[in-house]
Amino acid sequence: MKAEWIWYPGEFEIRTLNRVQARRFFREIPQPPIWQSFGVSPSVKFSKIFTLEKEEVLDIRASGLYSLELDRPGNFVRDENGRLELSPGLHTLTVHVFCDGGKFPAVRVCGESLASGKDWDCTLLDGEYVPADCGGFSEAERDPNDYALPVVRRDPVRAERKDGHILYDLGEECFAFCVFEGGRGKLRLCYGESEEEAEDPEACEQLDVLDLSRGERRTAVAKAFRYLAVTQEEEGELGFHAECEVRPQPFCARFSSSEERDTRIFETALRTFALNTREFFLDGIKRDRWVWSGDATQSYLINKYSFFDLETERRTIVALAGKGEIRRHFNTITDYTLFWLISFYDYYRYTGDLEFLGRWQRRFTQVLDFCLSRTDENGLLISPRGEWVFIDWNDALTKDSECYAFLQILLYGALKAAKRVYALLKDERAAACEARAEALKEQIFRLFWCEEKGGFTHSLLEGKSDGRIFRQINVMAVLTGLAGEHEKEQILHRVLLNETVPPITTSYMRFYEFAALCELGQKALVAEEMRSYFCGMLSLGATTFWEQYDPTRHGAEHYAMYGRKYGKSLCHAWGATQIYILGRYLVGLRPEEDGYDRFRLEPALEVLGDFSAKFPLKEGGWIEIDRKGQTLRVLATRDGSVLLGDTITEIQAGRETVLALDQKKGGKK
Amino acid sequence: MKAEWIWYPGEFEIRTLNRVQARRFFREIPQPPIWQSFGVSPSVKFSKIFTLEKEEVLDIRASGLYSLELDRPGNFVRDENGRLELSPGLHTLTVHVFCDGGKFPAVRVCGESLASGKDWDCTLLDGEYVPADCGGFSEAERDPNDYALPVVRRDPVRAERKDGHILYDLGEECFAFCVFEGGRGKLRLCYGESEEEAEDPEACEQLDVLDLSRGERRTAVAKAFRYLAVTQEEEGELGFHAECEVRPQPFCARFSSSEERDTRIFETALRTFALNTREFFLDGIKRDRWVWSGDATQSYLINKYSFFDLETERRTIVALAGKGEIRRHFNTITDYTLFWLISFYDYYRYTGDLEFLGRWQRRFTQVLDFCLSRTDENGLLISPRGEWVFIDWNDALTKDSECYAFLQILLYGALKAAKRVYALLKDERAAACEARAEALKEQIFRLFWCEEKGGFTHSLLEGKSDGRIFRQINVMAVLTGLAGEHEKEQILHRVLLNETVPPITTSYMRFYEFAALCELGQKALVAEEMRSYFCGMLSLGATTFWEQYDPTRHGAEHYAMYGRKYGKSLCHAWGATQIYILGRYLVGLRPEEDGYDRFRLEPALEVLGDFSAKFPLKEGGWIEIDRKGQTLRVLATRDGSVLLGDTITEIQAGRETVLALDQKKGGKK
Repeated sequence: MKAEWIWYPGEFEIRTLNRVQARRFFREIPQPPIWQSFGVSPSVKFSKIFTLEKEEVLDIRASGLYSLELDRPGNFVRDENGRLELSPGLHTLTVHVFCDGGKFPAVRVCGESLASGKDWDCTLLDGEYVPADCGGFSEAERDPNDYALPVVRRDPVRAERKDGHILYDLGEECFAFCVFEGGRGKLRLCYGESEEEAEDPEACEQLDVLDLSRGERRTAVAKAFRYLAVTQEEEGELGFHAECEVRPQPFCARFSSSEERDTRIFETALRTFALNTREFFLDGIKRDRWVWSGDATQSYLINKYSFFDLETERRTIVALAGKGEIRRHFNTITDYTLFWLISFYDYYRYTGDLEFLGRWQRRFTQVLDFCLSRTDENGLLISPRGEWVFIDWNDALTKDSECYAFLQILLYGALKAAKRVYALLKDERAAACEARAEALKEQIFRLFWCEEKGGFTHSLLEGKSDGRIFRQINVMAVLTGLAGEHEKEQILHRVLLNETVPPITTSYMRFYEFAALCELGQKALVAEEMRSYFCGMLSLGATTFWEQYDPTRHGAEHYAMYGRKYGKSLCHAWGATQIYILGRYLVGLRPEEDGYDRFRLEPALEVLGDFSAKFPLKEGGWIEIDRKGQTLRVLATRDGSVLLGDTITEIQAGRETVLALDQKKGGKK
Repeated sequence: MKAEWIWYPGEFEIRTLNRVQARRFFREIPQPPIWQSFGVSPSVKFSKIFTLEKEEVLDIRASGLYSLELDRPGNFVRDENGRLELSPGLHTLTVHVFCDGGKFPAVRVCGESLASGKDWDCTLLDGEYVPADCGGFSEAERDPNDYALPVVRRDPVRAERKDGHILYDLGEECFAFCVFEGGRGKLRLCYGESEEEAEDPEACEQLDVLDLSRGERRTAVAKAFRYLAVTQEEEGELGFHAECEVRPQPFCARFSSSEERDTRIFETALRTFALNTREFFLDGIKRDRWVWSGDATQSYLINKYSFFDLETERRTIVALAGKGEIRRHFNTITDYTLFWLISFYDYYRYTGDLEFLGRWQRRFTQVLDFCLSRTDENGLLISPRGEWVFIDWNDALTKDSECYAFLQILLYGALKAAKRVYALLKDERAAACEARAEALKEQIFRLFWCEEKGGFTHSLLEGKSDGRIFRQINVMAVLTGLAGEHEKEQILHRVLLNETVPPITTSYMRFYEFAALCELGQKALVAEEMRSYFCGMLSLGATTFWEQYDPTRHGAEHYAMYGRKYGKSLCHAWGATQIYILGRYLVGLRPEEDGYDRFRLEPALEVLGDFSAKFPLKEGGWIEIDRKGQTLRVLATRDGSVLLGDTITEIQAGRETVLALDQKKGGKK
């Protein structure tokens, strides 16, 4: 039998998150996360009832001390070095694992016909058994507590001995350990995403010191860099290579186009996203290395058009949810808890994975209830404890206000998501969420909609709208479905296409703006904006997309952020969102219905050149789409349909379909 | 400055409890606790605002990764190997400690004028700062995560080479590591509290194997034993000594009497209690090694007349309280949660430590609310989830019933305790607790009091009293103050002095019976019963008191319990309760008022012989009491009073007072 290491749901994610987030440094100073971290439970009982046809020997591995109870409570039996012989017949086996030393209890039991897996139950000894969790750990020797990404060797493409240091260039951004041969004494390593940063020992964001004389030949923590400047205490021959941590992906989307800018954007975005897809979806690999819910929400969307890596997606969702009493918003940011609620349902939209929803239903409710506990008598989300409202990197947006439209709109989206989650799970809360969403919608229209300005205004001052119009708020009103046809029309023309409304400068909110514009039929505009904005970075030599890009800056100015010379992340997950824009809106692939049993393809042919693409579908599936001149070829592992103009063409799984485009208009109907 | 290691309140206790409770074994099989264990939080920020008169160098130690923020958020500074130089003036220092590997975050900061201690604040990054906790860890090198008791060498008093093994006798029960010199190959160790157990390799409760050829010369876990049988794989000279883990006690009570049995009972009880007073108050050291709330409640009382070891007492109270959502009763036993609530106030009675009450007020409320969440519409405590109701080791008591009088009486006691706790803390909940206690009292009288039988009956069957009378229930009605004068009189004569009511066989409930009898004026009877029962064990060679003693058994039969030949604990904390009976009731020392600012002494002179005693008082104080013939000499570090007959004599601190007894009757008025 194929046995899996199993554990109490959430414990793997909590521990791995702690290990990952503890690896952030600013220069040599550790930077533990600024929000609460949770400990793992040291004691878990795993249990299974089963029948053996014949005598069997079990192989038992555990992450800590364990005891075995067989058939009846108190009947403790002893294994011999992890081997336990069982007679034929009906058995109950309970493995009680207790870990000191920070590990979470995990166990792997493997026999000829019996194997630990999802069908085992487990308990924290809190009076309740739940199904055990597992995934990705089947090898006997691979305790999931020690989870680490595999490494791949990479040699520098350039090594240059300069005045006082050697500069290595890996050719593109990597996430790597540094390994040295030869040399002696101490090495001082200055990392850089840019060459300027690596050669600026006073200001570079990441530093390390290795003492070769003490046998330190490999850095302890992998870091994100392209350039490395090494200063030797004692001159001498020095060999260097990188060991890059890479999460293997069984599937990887591809996209190439006669519109060569689209190809380069897709490929650079894919590299950016691959580097940020690690134990979790990280936001940025050089500086942050933390898991932020708002950023992850975008990564989940990108993921559906790149790797379809649901393991990392579920792990990120679960880790963000934390455990125990919820006392603060996720990442301390109000909007980020709301994004989590929305993304929880979104996971289902693309997977149909009802089991996951059910497993985390209780936590979902706790998170929702926490958010609702922060609402006032009108159901509006207030920030009574001075919690962080992020919205976007834009100070004008978050001057203290008692009530932000942005949060109310997200809460509306969260309530709608909750209604759908509960309806799927046949939970009676669905109706209350729907009613609450509708009541909130009325409030939002009453308080924030401004017919005169054709948009939702930003916040309340002394109970009245401040009359200010920002793109971010209106974009979210479109994407959550709050805005009706009338409001969408107004928002498009009087906010989004209105140059007097302050532009969005972050890729983070730019993404939502692009998505909203696509929803509003502006795919051609989005394609042009995307090409101009992202190719701007490429023309500056970017090998990955940045946290922020301002075309008006020059040279090393581009690297500054947060008041620091190299504070900006040059490989930021939200820089990869064009994968979603390309896949979801320009190529036009999406679930025909929530659950993604069938796909719908609606390519924006008027915007795209000739192209060839392969995107993932659920359950290991994929779809190939080739457009060449006036033909569109589609081959997919699942059934689906193509919408061109007003015409729907059915696609059968495994059967190549070629559509002639000459008579079709294509694009948005 | 004297700096202390500081930590987030409760984390030291939780971690230490995990370490201690993971050391229970049945033979070679680990036995993790059968109730929930809690993990520690890996991330804590410690913070302090202070002013330096002059430049100062701080010495900083932490139990994990840490970062230092100085004066303003985001201003990270670097120490040099734990040394941080600070300029004169006003500073804010924040130390953010992050631990992987199961440690809890702890830090020690020591400068000339600045030192970490109780006046530092800390936060789990959950939006709330609380005062840091500390105590007992001031040495820089002594991370409280590594807390271990000191060891004392002890050589066997006897070593006898027998057929196939060597038998060592330490002369009395110890809690020790085994250390060997010489010899070779494997050693098989069989431990015994009795000689029979050590020499019975098939049935002894504790085993170890050491492989001398692999350098294993010291056992990994200290165990409780007096006898050790060692079987050598290869014959050869073998040296053995024990390293006894002993918690040092700055104060130890003494009591000796011309009634020599009392002296021996006190001394044996003291040895029993000392062995069970370790990182926590344990219940029994051979088998259990866990912390049980019901047992600990008795230890707290014993402690006030022996070591006055408040550090261990507070640690035990806090550890039992656990953390997070309460989903089951403490130790899974309903009565044990109620005892915890009662003992929480009891701690105050003997210490006046309001700060401790305030610090744990929130948890106290959570525990109380949890208990109240288990009550029905009449305020009666029900056991809806089939939770364990212990009462006593007596199956007749705990046949399934919907409602036990014993639990209602304890709940009454807990509500009264809560009322007092809240009144002290000026918490408005006090009134509600009082009202609820009085309403519950009415219910208990209505449902359980039986005038005909002169006692509280045991339980309800189909809503009606079952009419059964047990001592345990009535004893608790006396001790919680539920019974009034009329009921007390009835209970004394028609239950406690009634030989047709089934006797109590455990020392656990016997203790409460003795206490109730003393409260009811039966000190002479208690003294005789105590002498007969406990000297019975002594006459069988006991060096410590047992979990249970049945004078009708013979020889090795005494060692059996739980269906196992040596299942009984021969060194059980509740066997030491006679210290409390002697100190509190026979010598008659108690707080004059709750808080113990002054003592009251009311010796039962008619029961005691000539005696000399020294007992602890709070804040490191003590009282010496000597009775010789017709004089009673009292010397104490605090003010107090002596009550003899109807006469109260004031005692001044530090001034020896000699009372002539010839005119006095002494004893209970």
